[in-house]
Amino acid sequence: MSETSKAPSESAVDQNVYKIFPNDLNSKYTVFGGLVMSLCDRTALIVAERHSGAPCVTAAVDSLHFVGPARAGDTLIIRAAANRSWRSSMEIGVHVAAENSYTGESRHVVSAYLTFVALSDDGTPQPVPPIAPETDAEKRRFKDAGQRRQQRIRDRKHKSK
Amino acid sequence: MSETSKAPSESAVDQNVYKIFPNDLNSKYTVFGGLVMSLCDRTALIVAERHSGAPCVTAAVDSLHFVGPARAGDTLIIRAAANRSWRSSMEIGVHVAAENSYTGESRHVVSAYLTFVALSDDGTPQPVPPIAPETDAEKRRFKDAGQRRQQRIRDRKHKSK
Amino acid sequence: MSETSKAPSESAVDQNVYKIFPNDLNSKYTVFGGLVMSLCDRTALIVAERHSGAPCVTAAVDSLHFVGPARAGDTLIIRAAANRSWRSSMEIGVHVAAENSYTGESRHVVSAYLTFVALSDDGTPQPVPPIAPETDAEKRRFKDAGQRRQQRIRDRKHKSK
Amino acid sequence: MSETSKAPSESAVDQNVYKIFPNDLNSKYTVFGGLVMSLCDRTALIVAERHSGAPCVTAAVDSLHFVGPARAGDTLIIRAAANRSWRSSMEIGVHVAAENSYTGESRHVVSAYLTFVALSDDGTPQPVPPIAPETDAEKRRFKDAGQRRQQRIRDRKHKSK
Amino acid sequence: MSETSKAPSESAVDQNVYKIFPNDLNSKYTVFGGLVMSLCDRTALIVAERHSGAPCVTAAVDSLHFVGPARAGDTLIIRAAANRSWRSSMEIGVHVAAENSYTGESRHVVSAYLTFVALSDDGTPQPVPPIAPETDAEKRRFKDAGQRRQQRIRDRKHKSK
Amino acid sequence: MSETSKAPSESAVDQNVYKIFPNDLNSKYTVFGGLVMSLCDRTALIVAERHSGAPCVTAAVDSLHFVGPARAGDTLIIRAAANRSWRSSMEIGVHVAAENSYTGESRHVVSAYLTFVALSDDGTPQPVPPIAPETDAEKRRFKDAGQRRQQRIRDRKHKSK
Repeated sequence: MSETSKAPSESAVDQNVYKIFPNDLNSKYTVFGGLVMSLCDRTALIVAERHSGAPCVTAAVDSLHFVGPARAGDTLIIRAAANRSWRSSMEIGVHVAAENSYTGESRHVVSAYLTFVALSDDGTPQPVPPIAPETDAEKRRFKDAGQRRQQRIRDRKHKSK
Repeated sequence: MSETSKAPSESAVDQNVYKIFPNDLNSKYTVFGGLVMSLCDRTALIVAERHSGAPCVTAAVDSLHFVGPARAGDTLIIRAAANRSWRSSMEIGVHVAAENSYTGESRHVVSAYLTFVALSDDGTPQPVPPIAPETDAEKRRFKDAGQRRQQRIRDRKHKSK
Repeated sequence: MSETSKAPSESAVDQNVYKIFPNDLNSKYTVFGGLVMSLCDRTALIVAERHSGAPCVTAAVDSLHFVGPARAGDTLIIRAAANRSWRSSMEIGVHVAAENSYTGESRHVVSAYLTFVALSDDGTPQPVPPIAPETDAEKRRFKDAGQRRQQRIRDRKHKSK
Repeated sequence: MSETSKAPSESAVDQNVYKIFPNDLNSKYTVFGGLVMSLCDRTALIVAERHSGAPCVTAAVDSLHFVGPARAGDTLIIRAAANRSWRSSMEIGVHVAAENSYTGESRHVVSAYLTFVALSDDGTPQPVPPIAPETDAEKRRFKDAGQRRQQRIRDRKHKSK
Repeated sequence: MSETSKAPSESAVDQNVYKIFPNDLNSKYTVFGGLVMSLCDRTALIVAERHSGAPCVTAAVDSLHFVGPARAGDTLIIRAAANRSWRSSMEIGVHVAAENSYTGESRHVVSAYLTFVALSDDGTPQPVPPIAPETDAEKRRFKDAGQRRQQRIRDRKHKSK
Repeated sequence: MSETSKAPSESAVDQNVYKIFPNDLNSKYTVFGGLVMSLCDRTALIVAERHSGAPCVTAAVDSLHFVGPARAGDTLIIRAAANRSWRSSMEIGVHVAAENSYTGESRHVVSAYLTFVALSDDGTPQPVPPIAPETDAEKRRFKDAGQRRQQRIRDRKHKSK
């Protein structure tokens, strides 16, 4: 299953939308972080399963930053794409914007990098196809994903000392 | 606000995704109709609010047909676009497919036509921009929406006799 | 299972109640259309399963009209009854009212006609009992359901041309 | 508001229905107690608000007994009625049955007695109308509610000693 | 499994926390009783399953009293412990406080006694370990639980006469 | 408000519990990552608000690793404590274990570091008290949090070049 590489565009989700509900708001009328995390995970999972062709589970969230708040009435626009893959894992990048659907204005809300692992029928990790980046942005994300992985490995070594 | 017409592409949602959860399944392991209806309404609402630039409420579902079942493990792909508008109302067409994300196979699940009304600050209907269809498909949907409206008006007259 | 006819009263739901929650409200403090659709589907499903004695799935919503808004604090009162059945399908009529439980005042909110199909153990459609309308209102609904079905068949022919 | 007495039938909910969802089931495929408690509270609240004509809050659950389990596929049928009222509080009796909608068979699942208090605009308790029981069953429930209240007062005295 | 007694501290939940969400609030901005009941049941269930080492189901809520309201912004702090066990049933005591996390102030909201039954693989009741109370408070709760059980048995006899 | 330092123990949550529901499970019968992220956020938020005495919002998840899966029937045990604070932000460490409540066995599932910002009434960041670590573990976490913050600042500089 993993011989042939795939372009990020073959598995990307371009425009997952979520209209904010009253229950998603804290006392400052901004959206709970946990809701946004959950939407990032659910959207990225679809990308991971499309890319790998197998059920996937979340392995890590390495970096998820709130750039600005999402508010009552906003529509969240969630985009996700596979940045790079390794033997049985993939880094999925997620971008969340908050759109005021009345004016069309849109603000960047969250950037996140999640790692997923593909599972075979017996629940053990299974190989996934390599990513073949095509656009300049995809190539940059591919390279950055490699650096983030190096950093993670260094961090883990540091910890285990 | 309503003088300038807008193309359907300015407000369309192309790829709202929803990974089916265990709670969405009935005893035959297919998805509850009510969940799909609710997703159609939530996605179409975003289109209506983008097109009108105002808060909108659902006025009617004139036709919502289940073409095939969605099952456990499927990802629902919901597309919605404004077909035509009248003084303060809009017909939004919705198409739902069930994708097997592992194989990439996709089946048509639901087609629906929903009507929304735009509201001003005091809660009364407010004018919305006309739709300017551009592609052939958009022009056909524009024309069909007009026929569906004629039929609705005939039905209502028939009823009130 | 389908030999003996049944009266609508044998399967009707007379008073399903739903107290509106904060999360059910949009920015105009009226209830999301999707919630009402979902309640209509869930209530009508019970009627269809009572009438057919089998698991049922939603086949279509042919007409669902919002006559007026439901608001914060209201209690939704949902009534549903089988109007007519054909070989393996049934039309269920649903009426939703919004009750101000403090004053007892009640307003009509939604009328809807949903079609359900009964399924056998292997997931194929199975015959359902005929409807035997008894009251004048039941007889009128039985007749109207037949006309709606004729219209649907004409619409489908028109489309496939 | 409280001068004129009201019959239990003026505020009763006769047939609130709830089709059990997958998420409502524990590992033994029976329904979580918390779901049933929550449905009892939501249904009884409507009765309390209808009877008192005011917003109400739950004051106590004095007795809620599971007579038998509700299972996957069952439809819960919830009935609630005001048994008796005091200055600003009411005892609401709730009966839950689990119906197999396919066969029509129905089993008793829960009996419960909940006490609600009616609140005025400033959030303090406000008087509620007396209950005027009409049928024999209503009269028996009225009398039993009085005994339960005596017992509660005895229990509280015993505790505070 | 039931030979060796266990102390309440071996199964107690000391600090289950729940930050109140907008959807949990009624029109008086206090928390729905049904939510609190549901949290009591879910927390007590964990204690019952820890104590018995088996899946448990709710048998009864004998007494659940709202001492004061919980409001928007509060954090509910839920504590639960096994008070006493009989052959296959256990009384779990639950205490709910509402904490203003900003000031640290905490108010008592609910006290409740729930009875659970442990189930064997075939769904029949199975023996549970005896409770061995250690602290003075545990010993008092053990004794009170016995009196509440006597009262329940008297009530049931009275009813069946 | 920020002059006096506080120990981590003054705001920590020691044992937030969550019994896994059917809807929380993917097709491999392990828990969705998004659910665990959401629980981490909700528990850490309480710690941040207790420590700062003010409403807080999530600023970042710097590292959230799934060490092992949580499965159907498990109880999640979530612990969270403030590791270190800066002018108006705090790092909260979260540890999630999956407990088999029947056997008492417990496995480490997730470790996460979340950053929260405290907000004043006008929605701008407000100062928070310093953390005064007391135990050896608290002192180590305090030191590590400083290193993670240095790394974050380096990463951000690197990015903006």
